[in-house]
Amino acid sequence: MSPKLVIVGTVALDDVTTPFGSVTRALGGSAFYGSVAASYWTSVGIVAIVGNDYPDEGFQVLSRRAVDFRGIEKSLEKTFAWTGEYTYDLNTAITKETRLNCLLSFNPKVERYYPNPETLFLANIDPDIQGGILDSLPTRPALVALDTMNYWIDSKRTSLLRVLKKIDLLTINESEARMLTGEFNLVLAARAIRSLGPSMVAIKKGEHGALVFYEGGVFASPAMPLEVVKDPTGAGDSFAGGLLGYLTSHSHRSPELLKQASIIGSVMASFCVSDFGVTGTLSLSMDEISGRIREFGDLTGFGRIDYEERRL
Amino acid sequence: MSPKLVIVGTVALDDVTTPFGSVTRALGGSAFYGSVAASYWTSVGIVAIVGNDYPDEGFQVLSRRAVDFRGIEKSLEKTFAWTGEYTYDLNTAITKETRLNCLLSFNPKVERYYPNPETLFLANIDPDIQGGILDSLPTRPALVALDTMNYWIDSKRTSLLRVLKKIDLLTINESEARMLTGEFNLVLAARAIRSLGPSMVAIKKGEHGALVFYEGGVFASPAMPLEVVKDPTGAGDSFAGGLLGYLTSHSHRSPELLKQASIIGSVMASFCVSDFGVTGTLSLSMDEISGRIREFGDLTGFGRIDYEERRL
Repeated sequence: MSPKLVIVGTVALDDVTTPFGSVTRALGGSAFYGSVAASYWTSVGIVAIVGNDYPDEGFQVLSRRAVDFRGIEKSLEKTFAWTGEYTYDLNTAITKETRLNCLLSFNPKVERYYPNPETLFLANIDPDIQGGILDSLPTRPALVALDTMNYWIDSKRTSLLRVLKKIDLLTINESEARMLTGEFNLVLAARAIRSLGPSMVAIKKGEHGALVFYEGGVFASPAMPLEVVKDPTGAGDSFAGGLLGYLTSHSHRSPELLKQASIIGSVMASFCVSDFGVTGTLSLSMDEISGRIREFGDLTGFGRIDYEERRL
Repeated sequence: MSPKLVIVGTVALDDVTTPFGSVTRALGGSAFYGSVAASYWTSVGIVAIVGNDYPDEGFQVLSRRAVDFRGIEKSLEKTFAWTGEYTYDLNTAITKETRLNCLLSFNPKVERYYPNPETLFLANIDPDIQGGILDSLPTRPALVALDTMNYWIDSKRTSLLRVLKKIDLLTINESEARMLTGEFNLVLAARAIRSLGPSMVAIKKGEHGALVFYEGGVFASPAMPLEVVKDPTGAGDSFAGGLLGYLTSHSHRSPELLKQASIIGSVMASFCVSDFGVTGTLSLSMDEISGRIREFGDLTGFGRIDYEERRL
């Protein structure tokens, strides 16, 4: 059966150090994190490339989450590897080393493996590749989402602007939204982005949650205040995966559904950061997930505000 | 009639520059901002000191909001004056000059003017003065809230810790919560603060809203994403004023009421930042306020999340 949601992006091996520990060659990458998070909500296919050093464990994890990985190509090079560090300010990753390796020859053939996804998530890769994928599909998916980063905003702005015209939802970090638009104020930045193409923009603010702008409104999806945040790597991709998985599992579209999907994104991000790599999102029970959804209800719900006009 | 909420703090004349303009000798001060915001919800008395240069306009503003200002003493010195600047990052004020002037001889006599407030807000002043006020009252108010700042955490930690033991609610900036407790993680910082005395802690995060911690839970009170933020001065005091005014106008206490009060705090802060000084909060209609409350409902409400467990 063809998966409803297809995610194209990186599969990586990450060396990560945070104040709470470190991991080497941890399973990671934007498409990997996104797929695991989305797999709780809908059927997922992943398109990526790995090297000859990629461990079987990665495929086992995807199997366990029933992610269709026929779309992962194997290269004779090494796997894309990222080395990063976080200080106590867990909002900002410090990149120590990026070895692109096999990513340099990534030429994803989405149409070959999954020609008709309902939703396509073009996770963070070269915008020329993102655009090429969209052009190659026989029919446009009902929902196309895209993520990007400072590197592409800086080095491939024209290509990025070209692909932005064709998508429905952009997920982007706060600082990158400012960089892309030149607007410091996030309401103005979101408006500028929406004028470039996507009708929906999710601005990710790390521990401060996300603001999701859509036609006629904005939704504040908070981050769960957690006592233990071990590793923020993949939080943004888990957010996008949860959001898009939930949206894809529903046939209607409404602002209300988008808000619920954002909360599911925040739910998955909250599990992600609670441990290193995908450990936090890999084996959640529906009880754990529904418990966390209730916690988000408590975190944001305030009932009915009663007051009388005070006569002066 | 004796006011239900008494606010002790500064009344100031502020010179403020932001990327969107500047004002000189604007009516300001923690008690001033807090009183104006609270006045929409309950009866308010203010205790402060002003100098011989304080303009009549300040008293006219308080009159207009029916704030009882018998508790404002007049000194022969000049009024406390603050000069500050904001860059595009409106979260952080850069203090250019602080002239304490008459504030140096401030010796507030709360018990003389308003001996039995239901709620007492000790806005940001010397913690020795805050403690002295509490000790001087014949009966402890039902609710005592306090605000402080980095300067006092640094220079009068012992006095601050002494007064914290006696209060119910602390409002404090994110960076100051970290400074006070040595905990970077805000959940741990809030827990540490609660172990020092106050059962409720509102951690203010500027444009990212506030986290309100209480026995058994936490509430995320967002900031309204606004296209026009002219001047953040007084936002924290307007938040506290709205929160405490709303709480004081209700006789019961519950987590739900605290959440609603936090939203009212965010509502008043959102009006405050929309213009310089108290211009944004001075003459609101109940229609404007209830409209903004509805906007906060749209910003955070997400209805019921429906999903089925996905069988893998």
